[in-house]
Amino acid sequence: MATLCRPSVSVPEHVITMEETLELARTRHPDHPQLPLALRLIENTGVRTRHIVQPIEETLRHPGFEQRNKVYAAEAKARVPAVVRAALDDAELLATDIDVIVYVSCTGFMMPSLTAWLINTMGFDSTTRQIPIAQLGCAAGGAAINRAHDFCSAYPEANALIVACEFCSLCYQPTDLGVGSLLSNGLFGDGVAAAVVRGRGGTGVELERNGSYLIPRTEEWIAYDVRATGFHFLLDKRVPTTMEPLAPALRELARRHGWDASDLDFYIVHAGGPRILDDLSKFLEVDPDAFRFSRATLTEYGNIASAVVLDALRRLFDAGGAAHQARGMLAGFGPGITAEMALGRWQHAAVREAV
Amino acid sequence: MATLCRPSVSVPEHVITMEETLELARTRHPDHPQLPLALRLIENTGVRTRHIVQPIEETLRHPGFEQRNKVYAAEAKARVPAVVRAALDDAELLATDIDVIVYVSCTGFMMPSLTAWLINTMGFDSTTRQIPIAQLGCAAGGAAINRAHDFCSAYPEANALIVACEFCSLCYQPTDLGVGSLLSNGLFGDGVAAAVVRGRGGTGVELERNGSYLIPRTEEWIAYDVRATGFHFLLDKRVPTTMEPLAPALRELARRHGWDASDLDFYIVHAGGPRILDDLSKFLEVDPDAFRFSRATLTEYGNIASAVVLDALRRLFDAGGAAHQARGMLAGFGPGITAEMALGRWQHAAVREAV
Repeated sequence: MATLCRPSVSVPEHVITMEETLELARTRHPDHPQLPLALRLIENTGVRTRHIVQPIEETLRHPGFEQRNKVYAAEAKARVPAVVRAALDDAELLATDIDVIVYVSCTGFMMPSLTAWLINTMGFDSTTRQIPIAQLGCAAGGAAINRAHDFCSAYPEANALIVACEFCSLCYQPTDLGVGSLLSNGLFGDGVAAAVVRGRGGTGVELERNGSYLIPRTEEWIAYDVRATGFHFLLDKRVPTTMEPLAPALRELARRHGWDASDLDFYIVHAGGPRILDDLSKFLEVDPDAFRFSRATLTEYGNIASAVVLDALRRLFDAGGAAHQARGMLAGFGPGITAEMALGRWQHAAVREAV
Repeated sequence: MATLCRPSVSVPEHVITMEETLELARTRHPDHPQLPLALRLIENTGVRTRHIVQPIEETLRHPGFEQRNKVYAAEAKARVPAVVRAALDDAELLATDIDVIVYVSCTGFMMPSLTAWLINTMGFDSTTRQIPIAQLGCAAGGAAINRAHDFCSAYPEANALIVACEFCSLCYQPTDLGVGSLLSNGLFGDGVAAAVVRGRGGTGVELERNGSYLIPRTEEWIAYDVRATGFHFLLDKRVPTTMEPLAPALRELARRHGWDASDLDFYIVHAGGPRILDDLSKFLEVDPDAFRFSRATLTEYGNIASAVVLDALRRLFDAGGAAHQARGMLAGFGPGITAEMALGRWQHAAVREAV
C-alpha cells in the first residue's frame, strides 16, 4: 500500500503582514468604491503573514508576462531542490528510487516542465515518468497525491515524488480592480512543497482510496483569463459557498469506504479561505479544531494554492502525527470546481514492521 | 488488461498545401539570408497538406495572446466533442462508463482545463478524474496512453478517455525568423483526436508495458519561450538527431519485456519530421515501411503534435488492424527531450471472447 510520507515545505524570505496588506490596499485604491468591503474581506481571511519570492516593491510592479515567467523559472530552480532533497530524506529514499514525478504548479508556465530540469540536475533516473499538471490550480495538491497513489497502485514497488511549486505573487495583476481581485491580492502567498509516496514502507498516510468530484456548471467560478499580461485570476463570489455541494461528495467517498466522514481522526484539506474551513466543519459536522493544521497554513502563509494540503500535512507530522491506524481524509479544492479527495490511515513504519 | 481502442481523429476544414507554404515563405521573407535553406527544409518534411482552424489569412495575423487563447477555447469546444463521441462509440462505451479523462494539449492554455467543460456538457459523471497535461508537447500523446494504461492497471475495471487537442497554427509567431521557426511554420498542423482505453474488453492494442526516457541535458532543444505574444516554439537543429540516443531506450524497454524492438509487428510513433522516421528505421533496424502510418499522418496532416500517435494508430485500425496477438510499439517524442513508450499486443475482442 502506498504511503504519503512527511512533506517538506519552504516559504520565501520576503514577508508581508496583514497590516501591510491592508495599508497597501488603502494607499493604492483610496477611491475604490468597494474599498471598505475589500478591506473587510481581507481581514476576514485571517491571513496574518504571507511569504513572497520578491520584495513587495518588486511584486507590485508588472514587468510583463515574459519577465514574470523568467522569474518563475529561476525561483523554482532556486527553491525546489531543497524541499525535494528533504522529502527524499524524510522518506528514506534516494532520487534513484523514484519512478514518477508529479509536478503541480499553476503560477508559471514552462515547457518542458521543471520535471526535466529536476531529473537532469538532481540525479533522478532518465526513465523517471513526468506528470506535470498546470490546470488544476489549488486542487492540484490533492490531485498530485491521488495520481501518485494511482501510480503506486498500478506498480506496487514504485515510489512517487510530488512537487508543488506556487508563486502566486507572480500572478499579481495591478490593473485588476474587482473586489475578487483585491481580496485575492490579500489572500494568496508563495510556497514550495515536496513529498514522497512510497509504494512500500514509510511513516505517514497509507492511501486507501481516492476520488474526484466536479460541481456541475461551476467552470467559471475559479478561472484564469489568459492575456498578454499573463494569468488573470478570476474568483467568483460564490466560491466560498462551495463546501455545501462538496461535503456530500466527501461523505459519499467515505461511505463507499465504510467510513463516516464526520467521524475521522484527522482532516487535511485545502484552506482556500476561512469560510471553506468553517463550512466544512458545519456541513461535515466536524469540530473546527479538526482543521487546525489547514488553518495554521492559511494564517501563517496565506493560500499557497496546491501546496496548502502538503503544508497542512507537514504540520500534522510536526505535531507528532496520528495514532497508528488513525483514519483520515485529505482534500484539495480548486477550479472546475473540482475536489480531489483521499482517504487513508496513519501508519508508523516501526509499528507496521513490528506487526 | 487495458486495451487502447480505435482513436477518432478530426482535422479542420482549412487546407494549406506544401506549394502554398513554400510560396508564403518566399513572399513573406524574400530577403531572408537563409530562405533557400528554409525552403529546402520545408520541402524535405514531405508534408503535402495541413489542416488549420482558420483561413490562412487569419492564421498569419497575430491578434494577441488573449484573442488566440479565446480562439483556442472556442475551437476546442467546437471540435472535440465529435471525436470524443466517436471514440466512445468505437469502444462501445457510454460517457458514464469513463472514470478518467486525460486531456493533452500544448497549443492553448485554459484553467480550468477543457476536462471540466467536457464533463459538464457531455454527460460524464461528476466523479470523473481529470488529468490535464500541457507541458509534454508532442510526447503527450504517448504520455496520455501511458497514464491511461497506468490508471487501468491501478483500477482494472476502469475505463479512460484520452483527448489530444492541438491547434499548432495558433502558435504561429510572425516575428520569429530563425530557420527553426520558418521550418516549424511549414511543419506543424492542427488536429484533434480521442481514444478510449478500456479496462476490460475491446479491440485494439492491449497495453502491456510502458516507460519514459529523458535524454540527459536536452531540456532546451524543444521549448516554449513564454512571452506577451504567447508561446514561442524553439526548435533546436539537433532535434532531428534524437533517434540515435532514443533508439536504445526503445530497445531496452522491449528487452525488459522479452521482446526485440527490431522485430515487432507494428510501430506507431510520433512523426515529428521525416528524419525521425528515417533514423528510427535505421537505428532500430526496422523496414521503413513499418512507419507508414506515422508517415501518412505527417504527409497529410503535418506534425499535429500529441495527436500524431493517435492518428497513426487510427490509420492502422482503418487498414484492418493487425493479427490477433501481433506485438507492437507506440511512442511519443517531445520536449525534455522525452520519449513516452508503450508495448502491447493487438487484440480482437471477438477472438478474445471466443478463447
